[in-house]
Amino acid sequence: MSKVVVFGHKNPDTDSICSSIVMANLQTKIRGEEVVPCRLGEINEETKYALDYFKAETPKLIEKVEEGQTVILVDHNEFTQTAEGIENAKIDTVVDHHRINNFHTAEPLSYYAQPVGCTSTLLYELYTLNNVEIEAKYAGLMLSAIISDTLLLKSPTTTEKDKKAVEELAKIAKIDVEKYGLDLLKAGTNLDKYTEKQLINLDAKIVENSGIRCMVAQVNTVNIPDVLKRKEKLEEVINQEIAEKELDLLVFAITDIVNSNSEAIVLGKRTDLVGKTFEIKNNIAVMPGVVSRKKQILPLIEKNM
Amino acid sequence: MSKVVVFGHKNPDTDSICSSIVMANLQTKIRGEEVVPCRLGEINEETKYALDYFKAETPKLIEKVEEGQTVILVDHNEFTQTAEGIENAKIDTVVDHHRINNFHTAEPLSYYAQPVGCTSTLLYELYTLNNVEIEAKYAGLMLSAIISDTLLLKSPTTTEKDKKAVEELAKIAKIDVEKYGLDLLKAGTNLDKYTEKQLINLDAKIVENSGIRCMVAQVNTVNIPDVLKRKEKLEEVINQEIAEKELDLLVFAITDIVNSNSEAIVLGKRTDLVGKTFEIKNNIAVMPGVVSRKKQILPLIEKNM
Repeated sequence: MSKVVVFGHKNPDTDSICSSIVMANLQTKIRGEEVVPCRLGEINEETKYALDYFKAETPKLIEKVEEGQTVILVDHNEFTQTAEGIENAKIDTVVDHHRINNFHTAEPLSYYAQPVGCTSTLLYELYTLNNVEIEAKYAGLMLSAIISDTLLLKSPTTTEKDKKAVEELAKIAKIDVEKYGLDLLKAGTNLDKYTEKQLINLDAKIVENSGIRCMVAQVNTVNIPDVLKRKEKLEEVINQEIAEKELDLLVFAITDIVNSNSEAIVLGKRTDLVGKTFEIKNNIAVMPGVVSRKKQILPLIEKNM
Repeated sequence: MSKVVVFGHKNPDTDSICSSIVMANLQTKIRGEEVVPCRLGEINEETKYALDYFKAETPKLIEKVEEGQTVILVDHNEFTQTAEGIENAKIDTVVDHHRINNFHTAEPLSYYAQPVGCTSTLLYELYTLNNVEIEAKYAGLMLSAIISDTLLLKSPTTTEKDKKAVEELAKIAKIDVEKYGLDLLKAGTNLDKYTEKQLINLDAKIVENSGIRCMVAQVNTVNIPDVLKRKEKLEEVINQEIAEKELDLLVFAITDIVNSNSEAIVLGKRTDLVGKTFEIKNNIAVMPGVVSRKKQILPLIEKNM
């Protein structure tokens, strides 16, 4: 029998990777048998910084799961965002902080979700609920995930629970949150080494509603104009993605993590879904105060549907 | 703004009713504002016995929810089993012990599910997690729900958590579990007062998979032949239900709660979904050892699809 595996969503971000490693640690301790952390894509620069800092191994890359395999999902539930073969796997547990959509199981399962800023905030709770002690390394990984998802507790997705978790985890990991947090976020803003195609797919989510397929990609930066120097080539690649993935809309949001603003390249036949809220000029929508895909960009697209 | 409401599934059983009352109590204490227990159908005899015993009010009957209304679901998640208008309500929280299917939300939510025998076992945990003291009345209602769902801890759906909850809740409610439990279950076996149509709908669930619509209804008894005296009239009503609800299969399971067996009247154009596993003679399938719809009857139907 193959081992139980844990993974986050495709195009993994720091939460998906760190939460997989942490959940595997917690579940291994609870079950008394090895649970294996996996990933569904390449590690980004920000995540790499966190794994290096806390000396954590990169999870194993997988593309699909076997029929009947027991799986644990973290940081996602939608089948459009997960491993191939999920329909025939046994979904044992989900820990997530997103809406539930495009998701179903054949049997009862454990599902632990709350509308908080980060999956790792819930994992922090699960350690406590299960009376499992948190080692410094795993505290550091959870801390990194929360800092990443909440942009250092500044995103509108941030809740009191996230703040409390950061406070407690920082003590266990012995970390200066402000300093480490800014270093971590900045590590993710080194975008020069990526091709345009890689940039579009670094942190991208596809959502499908009423037959409309939208992809919202996001990158963090400390200098939006710097990224927009590559606009022409980015647009070319975005249009290829739209054709390949049969998208009605692709929003590529470039988020300034210091000033908490975004500008987005918006292409596809349904740019009106963004255009009804933000003026689009030369394919670019300026979005003051927007930093959260989940809490700000996706809801505005759905509102305009 | 209308108050937050809590309800269980249509054709409510003791778990759906008691868990609604209990969850409303817990949430009222957590939120500091009144949360209202509701129900989506008539109370059965077993549930009535529990409510009378613990002097609990019958929840308010509703059929639909308003647009934008905040709702809490207990003991179910599937939209086929819930109130009308759910697509446009705000689903705030779900506490459940079933698979997830035909369910989605527009926004992140709280979801607390585990594969245990009864929703009230999870509510017992939630009191503890939220440091809310359990009053004897609510302990008694949770106890009743668990006894009902697990047939006094004898159903194969029973887990260690259910047993632990029963033990602790019995202390708080000061109840002799064996004696009260058998009285409660027997109260639900007085089927003479129901019409055949009422019997079919007392505890019925509709599931839909790959375009096949099945309804599985269940009644508890201490004497199966006694119920089967009404076979002819039951079949007539079952065939009406099949036509009205456009069902491909209706299974009416009559469960002997003392000897832990069932016999089922099986009708519809897809009786093969049961017939591949149990021989059907004169529209009746004898099912030795079968007492659980969720753990035994539904999985065998789906396996045969």
